[in-house]
Amino acid sequence: MTGPTAMDERRARAALSRAVEPGDEHAGRWLRRYGATGFLDRLLHTADSVDISGDEPFPGTGRRRVASWRLRATAADPDRDLDTIRELGGRFLVPGDTEWPRQLDDLGDTRPLGLWVRGPADLRTWALRSVALVGARACTPYGAHTAADLATGLARQGWVVVSGAAYGIDGAAHRGALAAAGATVAVLACGVDTPYPRGHDQLIRRIAEQGLVVGELPPDSHPTASRFILRNRLIAALTRGTVVIEAQHRSGSLVTARAAARLGRHTMGVPGPVTSALSAGVHELLRGDATLVTDAEEVIELVGDMGQLAPARRGPVLPRDLLAPAAAHILEAVPARGPTPTTVIARRAGTGPDDTLARLYELHSLGFVERRGDGWQLTNTATDASNARRGGT
Amino acid sequence: MTGPTAMDERRARAALSRAVEPGDEHAGRWLRRYGATGFLDRLLHTADSVDISGDEPFPGTGRRRVASWRLRATAADPDRDLDTIRELGGRFLVPGDTEWPRQLDDLGDTRPLGLWVRGPADLRTWALRSVALVGARACTPYGAHTAADLATGLARQGWVVVSGAAYGIDGAAHRGALAAAGATVAVLACGVDTPYPRGHDQLIRRIAEQGLVVGELPPDSHPTASRFILRNRLIAALTRGTVVIEAQHRSGSLVTARAAARLGRHTMGVPGPVTSALSAGVHELLRGDATLVTDAEEVIELVGDMGQLAPARRGPVLPRDLLAPAAAHILEAVPARGPTPTTVIARRAGTGPDDTLARLYELHSLGFVERRGDGWQLTNTATDASNARRGGT
Repeated sequence: MTGPTAMDERRARAALSRAVEPGDEHAGRWLRRYGATGFLDRLLHTADSVDISGDEPFPGTGRRRVASWRLRATAADPDRDLDTIRELGGRFLVPGDTEWPRQLDDLGDTRPLGLWVRGPADLRTWALRSVALVGARACTPYGAHTAADLATGLARQGWVVVSGAAYGIDGAAHRGALAAAGATVAVLACGVDTPYPRGHDQLIRRIAEQGLVVGELPPDSHPTASRFILRNRLIAALTRGTVVIEAQHRSGSLVTARAAARLGRHTMGVPGPVTSALSAGVHELLRGDATLVTDAEEVIELVGDMGQLAPARRGPVLPRDLLAPAAAHILEAVPARGPTPTTVIARRAGTGPDDTLARLYELHSLGFVERRGDGWQLTNTATDASNARRGGT
Repeated sequence: MTGPTAMDERRARAALSRAVEPGDEHAGRWLRRYGATGFLDRLLHTADSVDISGDEPFPGTGRRRVASWRLRATAADPDRDLDTIRELGGRFLVPGDTEWPRQLDDLGDTRPLGLWVRGPADLRTWALRSVALVGARACTPYGAHTAADLATGLARQGWVVVSGAAYGIDGAAHRGALAAAGATVAVLACGVDTPYPRGHDQLIRRIAEQGLVVGELPPDSHPTASRFILRNRLIAALTRGTVVIEAQHRSGSLVTARAAARLGRHTMGVPGPVTSALSAGVHELLRGDATLVTDAEEVIELVGDMGQLAPARRGPVLPRDLLAPAAAHILEAVPARGPTPTTVIARRAGTGPDDTLARLYELHSLGFVERRGDGWQLTNTATDASNARRGGT
């Protein structure tokens, strides 16, 4: 999967993910300028404030910040962290990986250095068809009921439910998706090996087995107030839209919603009684640009502009099983080998060329097929899944 | 108050208000063409379908409709109806009266022929600063609580609460306004002497004593399904905005809200639990162009673009008492006789000429002052109220 240079880059990003706090724009700028290995190198091999030539190594970035980076980079052991995640059956994704969710690029210099991931699914494919459900920890029974109901409805229609694994709305959302045997992603503000909160140990373990547990902090990292806040930008960026279900004024969920709006994602809110302080934050949002939603259909109506395609999964669940019949039918008609022209695929499928082409573009956006010259071919993921379906792996 | 011609016009409109159903656009067009006396005359003095010259008297209007108008116009006794309303201490307003609420002109050919009014307040002045609160008859305790709470909040801040006197939300809204010793208007779909529903006899009597009871149907008229629906356009047109509090899908309250939107009024909705069928209609509205509101302040923020001026009242409550201090101060400075130039009023008040002029325009829009040449003078209403304040009437 990775040549030596790529491995160096991955190791450097793993080390930096321990040295740098999430969402650090200064680090993001230096990363953009020097690359991960260059940035790490400069961090480890320059003096505290002045390099050999007498220049500051990171002009414009405060010395205390650089000192903290350096201290933590020196202590970092990326090989051990990469071993840890591997032993957990997980992986450390970096930009450029096929599984890297490209919508995170919208975060610019606050894009995560990498993502520590546990679980059998393909994060990129899932994120393409995902919705964030977020809300209060101390929610009411009404809020918990509504979150679970929405999650179940979304999952049943092939949508991936993303949340933060917290008590209250988050937990209800994950459980609602799991109850429908659906797809769910927990985005943590700590290491993916040290779930928080402890009371959700079992829930997070189940998500790691059936869905995905994701975070930008290396193994054994603990959550802090600012990490919770910055985690919210990941939830917003990963998904096609964010639904807030119960939030007081100045709630963290409103941070997620505003981040989603800034990133051009849909923001939605579930209303509640005006007499409930736990709906006040949602109503505030709905008095702005957010859209009021009352059920999963209304959410999908808003975010679902890519037809009825469903996410692919890695592992036991075959991606094709969740595709709409028409798309699955076209995918069947794409030969296992070689680029094939649209007309040939259309003839094999027995559908018109326009309809075939539209479906191929949909399959392309989901990572099942890719263009090669004038033709189409299956991607590796699609081929793997196809093999699995035919009795392989 | 009325010369002989004006009386003829008023009598003709009273007769027509018995002959023609509310909101009849055909009648509205003939009224515009012939005037009330001309229209009535043509109705009473032409043959069933063809006049003396052999032409149809109302080409383009179906014969059955004309026959029904004629039948009812022949049976009408406008003098008796005008006596009845007078005996009740009420009045029959027609366009052109100083108390006629001019915003009803926005209804075009469906503008009411006249308004049968009971109660001590000045309808035109009140309507300038009014909000409609409407909603389900079979509301929940949450809906009733919210309606009463909103009404009390609006009334406390000098806003007039308009509703339809029905059970449920309407009743709660009227009662909430009365509880705050505030202003409220009941717009009925029947004669103002024969309140409907019967269970609200006492409530409607109280409104007639402390507020206004208004309708376009002559005394002793009974409500029908279509009269209820058409009454809603009056509520929408009279007010600066309509707030819907609990409504099922396809509720009559949504008709009012949509009428308000068509008339360029603000439409608002109070959200509720998504699990409540009685909030489903409101949520539908809020997913469109309506604004979500949770309290009286948010309603006023939207509709209150005329500062903190309050409605004038006729009778025991003095209009000036509800004016914002700055406006009341300027009003004090307008001499009882006269047109007086702005500069003189500014000097008497001790305020700058720009500020004085702005306040004068506000007072003008509320009917306290009027322009005469280069100066300003008190209107009759303002003079009456002023006299009352100084110990008169």
